[in-house]
Order: sequence, then structure tokens, then C-alpha cells
Amino acid sequence: MPELRKDPILGRWIIISKERSRRPTDFIVEEYKSTGGFCPLCPGNEKTTPNEVLVFGREPGLPPNAAGWQLRVVPNKFPALIIEGNLEKSGEGLYDRMNGIGAHEVVIESPGHDDRFSFLPHQQMMNIFRAFRNRILDLAQDKRFLYVMVFKNYGRAAGASLEHPHSQLVALPILPRMVTSELEGALSYYKYKDRCIFCDIIHQEIQQDVRLVCQNNYFVTLTPFAPRTPFEMWILPKEHGSSYTEQSEESMNQLVSIFSETMRRLDACIPGVPYNFVLHTQPLRSNPLEHYHWHFEIMPKLTMIAGFEWGSGFYINPIPPEEAARFLKEASI
Amino acid sequence: MPELRKDPILGRWIIISKERSRRPTDFIVEEYKSTGGFCPLCPGNEKTTPNEVLVFGREPGLPPNAAGWQLRVVPNKFPALIIEGNLEKSGEGLYDRMNGIGAHEVVIESPGHDDRFSFLPHQQMMNIFRAFRNRILDLAQDKRFLYVMVFKNYGRAAGASLEHPHSQLVALPILPRMVTSELEGALSYYKYKDRCIFCDIIHQEIQQDVRLVCQNNYFVTLTPFAPRTPFEMWILPKEHGSSYTEQSEESMNQLVSIFSETMRRLDACIPGVPYNFVLHTQPLRSNPLEHYHWHFEIMPKLTMIAGFEWGSGFYINPIPPEEAARFLKEASI
Repeated sequence: MPELRKDPILGRWIIISKERSRRPTDFIVEEYKSTGGFCPLCPGNEKTTPNEVLVFGREPGLPPNAAGWQLRVVPNKFPALIIEGNLEKSGEGLYDRMNGIGAHEVVIESPGHDDRFSFLPHQQMMNIFRAFRNRILDLAQDKRFLYVMVFKNYGRAAGASLEHPHSQLVALPILPRMVTSELEGALSYYKYKDRCIFCDIIHQEIQQDVRLVCQNNYFVTLTPFAPRTPFEMWILPKEHGSSYTEQSEESMNQLVSIFSETMRRLDACIPGVPYNFVLHTQPLRSNPLEHYHWHFEIMPKLTMIAGFEWGSGFYINPIPPEEAARFLKEASI
Repeated sequence: MPELRKDPILGRWIIISKERSRRPTDFIVEEYKSTGGFCPLCPGNEKTTPNEVLVFGREPGLPPNAAGWQLRVVPNKFPALIIEGNLEKSGEGLYDRMNGIGAHEVVIESPGHDDRFSFLPHQQMMNIFRAFRNRILDLAQDKRFLYVMVFKNYGRAAGASLEHPHSQLVALPILPRMVTSELEGALSYYKYKDRCIFCDIIHQEIQQDVRLVCQNNYFVTLTPFAPRTPFEMWILPKEHGSSYTEQSEESMNQLVSIFSETMRRLDACIPGVPYNFVLHTQPLRSNPLEHYHWHFEIMPKLTMIAGFEWGSGFYINPIPPEEAARFLKEASI
């Protein structure tokens, strides 16, 4: 059973995932999980993953977990958190812990092992973003979960352990610190101004036009004013909304267009760059929030987290976002 | 001029260090700074660094910046922040920025290019920890600075760009977020209990004896209850004190002994492991704090920061600290 533990000084939670435990010397070399050329996410190898919880495009007449599909969502075989059990919160002197209850799922984005998210056709990308929505809505029915974190790691340097195109969902029994910080920061601005800070940012960015990368009717991509990494980008809906799952079909359609364009611009600037992206949306079963605004954050993996960053929570970024935006805007795609 | 920028939602600061700027494609391969076999920190190459601000063990009769020394502290040739100028805080619509004023210094720990911090003789290590104290006290006289971050990056994976043994100091014009969070967390415990949380942790850890790595009369090394990385360790003084620079000579002597033992234990478990360490101490010119307790945090670089960590602020750790402590305690050194 994995365990959640809270740092008593900072209130920061960590997951002790013993299921993944190793001997000290096993850490010396970090590598792609050696699968000897075998890919557990490829068509034909469906039996090597846990049973699918969602599938799109399975050919008519075929049973679950057979080959012949466009997208599958399966539980992670090596989950950071596990779905069975109770939280059993407990103390140990001044420390707090609970069982590592949660869900950890893998979105297999395409049957093609060598396909790349950034270059998938529109309909296939629609499948991915629909899968995010469907899985969030389904996991929200489990009252033990407070948040679903949706993210993608692309490339080994960005933490991907498998090459096959995939993204991930983790359902969490607590609100993670980054989410509460963002909610609190946005709320404190709202209390002061009576406006959503993200709406104000979008307004200012469109007016200034120095950090805009691209836009369409529904969305805008920008490099944030204080980016943690070179070429960090945010994709935000122009119209206020706090929940990813509440958007219309046309909105999702336009999200896919701008996401695809954004990623192709990034790839044109820095071919094959490893990256992470994370969906920021309201907590599960929350009412719509006036002060919060859902969005995606894309973080290319180009700099290191070293002593200074660990100690300060500061990031050092060698590329001003205005320069990154110009490179991205001018990239030919 | 580098620039400090604040994320308006999270209050997180970042440093835009244009002096280090590159074209997008320069990011594709991260490598040790190519010095063509030439090391700017080695004896004989003193003229390739800015003038030293502190030196220990220079042979009598030799001028500053000559060869023949045991330890030198020099300004960083590629500083994240620069020392000349004023902060000139200003706004840009809803954003805040200021000039990147600060100091960035390199502690050249030994003349020996291939020496390793973890295996330096006692007296040489004393020099390093004395240099930290002397430089903090000196930088504290500059009223523009609120904090001095002392840290070490060892190994390329932990962010070191030079091989020659060295650590770094960065004087900052603001209190970094991690420092304020730690101070606030400790203060809120103090208000509730009227005791220092670190003192309570030390007391509980010595009693439980499941996360202790080693101790001497003045210090204890433990694996924290909620570690961010496998084999994370904290070194804390047993007696309460909020300021690194206020400790006695005998305390520093014992700090060097336990630090050396701690690092040799780590190396015995995972030979050559890259790591960061960071000094946590009170803000500059602060009165002694009843609620805060200075210490070092050592973070081996064994896991990745990926989408989940970026999005949640959570860390996934595959080794329980009790197991890491056992490995470290039993290591033969």
C-alpha cells in the first residue's frame, strides 16, 4: 500500500510508493524501463496492461481489450496510488499520514508506437481531450477523490518511462499544494478587484501583444510573464470558466486546434524537445468559481532544478518570455 | 541587467537572466560547459575568474589572485544576479518586476580539481564552512539583501556546470518563497505549541530511532518523515538556534565531522551519486528566532521532476525514509 505523508513544517505532501521500491544501487542509472523492444502499450499487447476503463474506435464486434482501437485508457500497472481501500488517516507523534488511495491511469493516445502527440490528426487529438473529460467525470463519482491531475510527460528528460505516446491521470484524495496555492492566489485577487485574474491577464496580454504566441476564437496561447522554464506556455480559454469538463464541443474543437498549433510551433523552435503539460482545472464536484479559470500549462524541459531552486523556490530562466514568444510566433509550421 | 519577475497568481519570483541567453536550438543538448580541458577554478588560472573576495591559506608573501591557496571565494563570472545598481521596482499592468540585484559567488573548495567534497580532510572542510559564515556576514552588511542562499550542486545531473569542487552563495533582495513558507510553517506551530517544531522533530526522531542516520554531541542527521527524494537527509543542530553564523567554533567543528560522515555514508550506498545541498538559516540581520532552527538539507538527484510534480507540488518517492536510514546507517565507511 503506498502512503501519503505530510511534511509538518511546509504542509507539503509526498507519496511513498513502496511498490516501486528498489535497492540503493538500482538508482545509479536512470533509464527508460527496459522492455527489450517490447511495448506494453502497442496493439496486440492489450493483455499486458490492466483492463481498459475507456476505449474509443474499437472495431465493431471485437471484445474489450482486443486489438483494433484508436485510444485506450487503462489503469497504470505500476500506480503511484491504488484504488482499493480506505484512507485511514493517522498520526505518528507530530507527523500525519494516510493510505495512498487514488487512481492512476494511462491514456494510450494512439495505436502508433512512433506517433507523436504534437503531430496527431485533429480527430485523434479530439479523442485524447475527450478521454480527459470522460475520465475526470467518471472519477469524480468516487467521493474519496478531491482532484484529478491530468498531465503528459514527453521524452525521457521530462520523466517519460515509455516511448509509446501516452498521457496520465492521477485522482488524489487531497487537494495538492499547487492547486490550493493557485486557488488562493486567484481568490485573493478576486476579493480585491472583483475580477478573475486570469481574465485580466488575457485582456492585458492581448492588448500588449508581446507574449502572445497564437490565438483563435475561443483560446489564446501565451508565454507567461514569469515563466519557470524557457518556452513555458499557457493555453487559456478567452471566455471565463473554471472547469475543463464544462466546455462545449465547439470549445474542445478549438482547443485541439490551438494545442496542436502550439506544440508544432514549439517543435519548430526546438525539434524533439522534451516537455510536460498539466491541466489546471477546478476541484472535483466544485461549483463554478468566479475567481478561477481553467487552462493548460506547457513546460519544456530545458533547464535543471538545482540547489538554488530547491532552496529558494525561485527559478532562473535564461530566455525572457517576450523573446520566446517571438521565436514561437515566427516559427514556420 | 537580469530581472526579477513575480507570478501574479502564485507570488512566485523568477529570475530572467538574459546574460545567459541563447538561441532556442542551443538548448537541445545540455552539457558541461565546454572548457576544452581548461578549468577556470584550478590553481594557475586565477586570472580567468573575477577577483577573489575571500581566500584561505594563501602562501605568505604572495599577492591576491595568485596561485598557492587552500580555498578561494570569487564572484560568479556568469552571475544570475548582479551587484551594481538599484532595485527600481516597477509595475507593468498587473505584473511586478525589479532589477536583478544581488550577489552570486563561487566557493572554490580546494585547489585539487579531482578532489571531492565528501572526502576532503577535516581542516579543508572547516575552511568551506567558515567561508560560508564569513561571506554571509559580509553580504549582510549590504542593506539591499534580505537573504543569502548557500548551496552546492554536485554532478551534472544535479545542475553542476563545472567539475572542480565548488559551492555557491546567492544574496537575494527578497525573501524567497521557500524560506517564507518554512518560517511561516514553523511560526504557526510555535504559536500553537510554544515550542520549536524542529526541536520537537529532533526529540521525536531520537526517541523513535527509525530515521536516524548518525549523530554526535552537537548534531543529528536524519531522513525526514516526508522526503522529496530517495535518501534525502537533514543535518540539524541538537541545541536550538536560528542562525548558522551564530554557532560556536566547537559546533562548526562537529558540524564538519557529521557532514563528512553523512556524505561518506551516502556515497557508500550510491557511489558517485549527484546531489544538492542547501543551508536553511534565518534571514539576514534578523533577531534570534524562537520558532526557527537552522539546518542543512541534502537532496540526492535520483528521481525526475515531471508533469505530476509540476502540477501538484507533490513528490513521488520510491524509498521510505526508514529504509533509506537503515541503508545509510549500515553502510560501511
